[in-house]
Amino acid sequence: MAKDFTKRADNYSQWYNELVIKADLAENSAVRGCMVIKPYGYAIWEKMQAALDKMFKETGHQNAYFPLFIPKSFFTKEASHVEGFAKECAIVTHYRLKTDENGKIVVDETAKLEEELIVRPTSETIIWDTYRNWIQSYRDLPILVNQWANVVRWEMRTRLFLRTAEFLWQEGHTAHATQEEALVETRKMLDVYATFAEQFMAVPVLKGIKTANERFAGAIETFCIEALMQDGKALQAGTSHFLGQNFAKAFDVKFLTKENKQEYVWATSWGVSTRLMGALVMAHSDDNGLVLPPKLAPIQVVIVPIYKNDEQLAEISVKAEAIKKAIEAKGISVKYDNRDTYKPGWKFAEYEFKGVPLRLAIGPRDMEEGTIEVARRDTMEKAIYQQIDIENKVEHLLDSIQSNLYQKALNFRDMSTYKVDSWAEFKDAIENKGGFVLAHWDGTTETELKIKEETKATIRTIPLNNPKENGKCIFSGKPSTQRVVFAKAY
Amino acid sequence: MAKDFTKRADNYSQWYNELVIKADLAENSAVRGCMVIKPYGYAIWEKMQAALDKMFKETGHQNAYFPLFIPKSFFTKEASHVEGFAKECAIVTHYRLKTDENGKIVVDETAKLEEELIVRPTSETIIWDTYRNWIQSYRDLPILVNQWANVVRWEMRTRLFLRTAEFLWQEGHTAHATQEEALVETRKMLDVYATFAEQFMAVPVLKGIKTANERFAGAIETFCIEALMQDGKALQAGTSHFLGQNFAKAFDVKFLTKENKQEYVWATSWGVSTRLMGALVMAHSDDNGLVLPPKLAPIQVVIVPIYKNDEQLAEISVKAEAIKKAIEAKGISVKYDNRDTYKPGWKFAEYEFKGVPLRLAIGPRDMEEGTIEVARRDTMEKAIYQQIDIENKVEHLLDSIQSNLYQKALNFRDMSTYKVDSWAEFKDAIENKGGFVLAHWDGTTETELKIKEETKATIRTIPLNNPKENGKCIFSGKPSTQRVVFAKAY
Repeated sequence: MAKDFTKRADNYSQWYNELVIKADLAENSAVRGCMVIKPYGYAIWEKMQAALDKMFKETGHQNAYFPLFIPKSFFTKEASHVEGFAKECAIVTHYRLKTDENGKIVVDETAKLEEELIVRPTSETIIWDTYRNWIQSYRDLPILVNQWANVVRWEMRTRLFLRTAEFLWQEGHTAHATQEEALVETRKMLDVYATFAEQFMAVPVLKGIKTANERFAGAIETFCIEALMQDGKALQAGTSHFLGQNFAKAFDVKFLTKENKQEYVWATSWGVSTRLMGALVMAHSDDNGLVLPPKLAPIQVVIVPIYKNDEQLAEISVKAEAIKKAIEAKGISVKYDNRDTYKPGWKFAEYEFKGVPLRLAIGPRDMEEGTIEVARRDTMEKAIYQQIDIENKVEHLLDSIQSNLYQKALNFRDMSTYKVDSWAEFKDAIENKGGFVLAHWDGTTETELKIKEETKATIRTIPLNNPKENGKCIFSGKPSTQRVVFAKAY
Repeated sequence: MAKDFTKRADNYSQWYNELVIKADLAENSAVRGCMVIKPYGYAIWEKMQAALDKMFKETGHQNAYFPLFIPKSFFTKEASHVEGFAKECAIVTHYRLKTDENGKIVVDETAKLEEELIVRPTSETIIWDTYRNWIQSYRDLPILVNQWANVVRWEMRTRLFLRTAEFLWQEGHTAHATQEEALVETRKMLDVYATFAEQFMAVPVLKGIKTANERFAGAIETFCIEALMQDGKALQAGTSHFLGQNFAKAFDVKFLTKENKQEYVWATSWGVSTRLMGALVMAHSDDNGLVLPPKLAPIQVVIVPIYKNDEQLAEISVKAEAIKKAIEAKGISVKYDNRDTYKPGWKFAEYEFKGVPLRLAIGPRDMEEGTIEVARRDTMEKAIYQQIDIENKVEHLLDSIQSNLYQKALNFRDMSTYKVDSWAEFKDAIENKGGFVLAHWDGTTETELKIKEETKATIRTIPLNNPKENGKCIFSGKPSTQRVVFAKAY
């Protein structure tokens, strides 16, 4: 499998595309830009969902479900939102097909909708139209709701997980009585995302705000987490928006305060998507295939028997099943692959490619000596352990792999972060080194866009608690009080 | 809340509509036929999903995700499927909006799709188009895949949960090497659905097959579970289809057998939807509001303090929190409602209306005497228990409520099932009694449709293991070998 598999150094982009397909994560469908998420890929997404959903609920949120379709007119109600979202989208115009005189199935022109429906690219508008009826007084606040859903944005250039016309995501939409409370919520969910990225995905992230130019259409402030991929490109992994009263005003959502006054409601929204699957793959995987952090691996441990005949297999299977049971009792997912249709070498390559964190192998000599071979996917190291205490070793090893992957990614990011003070240094870093480039910027969108035009680098974020430092904009030379994070990005 | 709430006997249909909205389960949205599932309703759906998903995985299935959109031409490939599904549907024709000369947002006519996309009404076509690439040899079979998704059918008359343009569901799509294996799968999933309906929803169901006329478009045989609602109308609660080789032939999906021959693959599909929410509400609820079976209730136990001053509340809260903790340790969900903004009487009415299975109340006298008042929602009975052993009582009481609801629904169904042998008896039963009517039928679609035209009754199912019995069709008088189940249906 790994034989005809492109190496990262040869063509990182092709390596990614091949890996996603060959590891059975996803594939392109017959519908332009829409992907099929295959069972192995979906099992990882389910683990992500479960971890996030638990964190959302622990922070007081409930799930709900809002319509797939949004009336066209809703988008026009929030002026900047329509600019950002109602352009490249899937538009439903008719509701019936018919068989024509030639027996062909065609659109029935008599079944034209009075108002076109947009397949949701994001749900602020339909949700705030709904909240108007849910909110009368301060007693109805806060509303802390999340939705797991599919959304559609008609992207022209698509790549599996990273940019697809349809993708899966969650979108939180909360309503608050005060600005302070909404801001606390925005930051709280940013922290939830950062914790998830670091503790489950083993991906270190920068937390910060977006510049005005990169802000969500309709937001007052967009907070984000930014991760660094192995090719030195940044990936926005999650955003949390403080929406102020923009949507409340657009959809006329007011509430009666304790003081008996009518006021507009304060809003936040926040989301992560199947894009995280792309980040997960690109952060850790290598030239031998996927590398999955144990907390998100569908199969955490695989046991492979090595045998010459049925008798040996039978004997090994008894031991392997006992070990499987002991490990599973610790809440660890284990697969015992005793298929006779494939050889051990094929199985080793298969699970290595699929990123299974730990592989255990038992052969005839192990049976004699009470041993078992353990191979970890992250370091590719092998060791011989005693069967008798393998279940305790496994738990410890999985923790070790989880933290090693995080540390490795953190080291890489540290090594790939550059401070530059001149335009020449900046261009050199962006063009030849990649990574996060910390540089002074004059704070204008004009400069930001010019830098993007010349180098393709964008301001990924202005980090939270960014140290103040006087300097000069690397492009315009105008004064600046802090460095911001530039990078090329996915 | 229950004051201005319609009684079942006065107007069952209105009772249902009001209940769904007033109990915060769902509401109509601004988009015709599409519903908003509110947090309380969605929490029940999540419990349904979790239970079903566990059963699917225990029977060897994996989840995956396929595109929302289906190219129009795909529907024409399976002749009977197109008749059933590609007519009333949401059709995407364009992919861009623009601002016109008057500043209005309009569809950009230059962005017309070459081939229209249908928002999936069901996914057989796109999935079998995908399976063609997944299946080469017998080694690739079986494929046991399920998808949790939203689907759209452009219904003209909609009712919350029972019939909506967009709804949530799961659809299993499996591929097999032999007819026998596909038939075993079809029946296995029917059993999963029946077990779920009876053990979780506490709704007894009839298992059987559909007549040719009621069969899924594209299926060889449709198996179903049929439930009876309190108004004597039937509700199809789930279907499992044996699709033969119809979709394999339509999408050219062949495999190499062990004997090195090319053969078409055998298929099944099976699904349940948010319609189950409607069945759940209509099967158990009463004139005081929702009645939820404990296994699907988001809040299984609520504790309400009764107090006159802050001091009493503080004292009661210590006890209540301890009881809550003890009950939660048994995996039971408990809410302690110590809100001072609402009076105990209001809370009692609220949780009664929301169908919380058990309500515990603690007042000052209970504190003195070490007692606690327990009220069960199903029978509305109250009893005084000792605080000291309440956690054990609660567990037992929840089991008791779960089985009582099932037994009550079963008794109702038994009382509402009629054997009739003449057309006069049949019409009387259908028009005046309701319920399941067991009658002889001549086996023709012609008779079936005429009976439907005259009485609105349809053949709900031909039960599995139906006893053979010679008789005469109640409509045509022609010979018949078995009774089938007629009813008016949702």
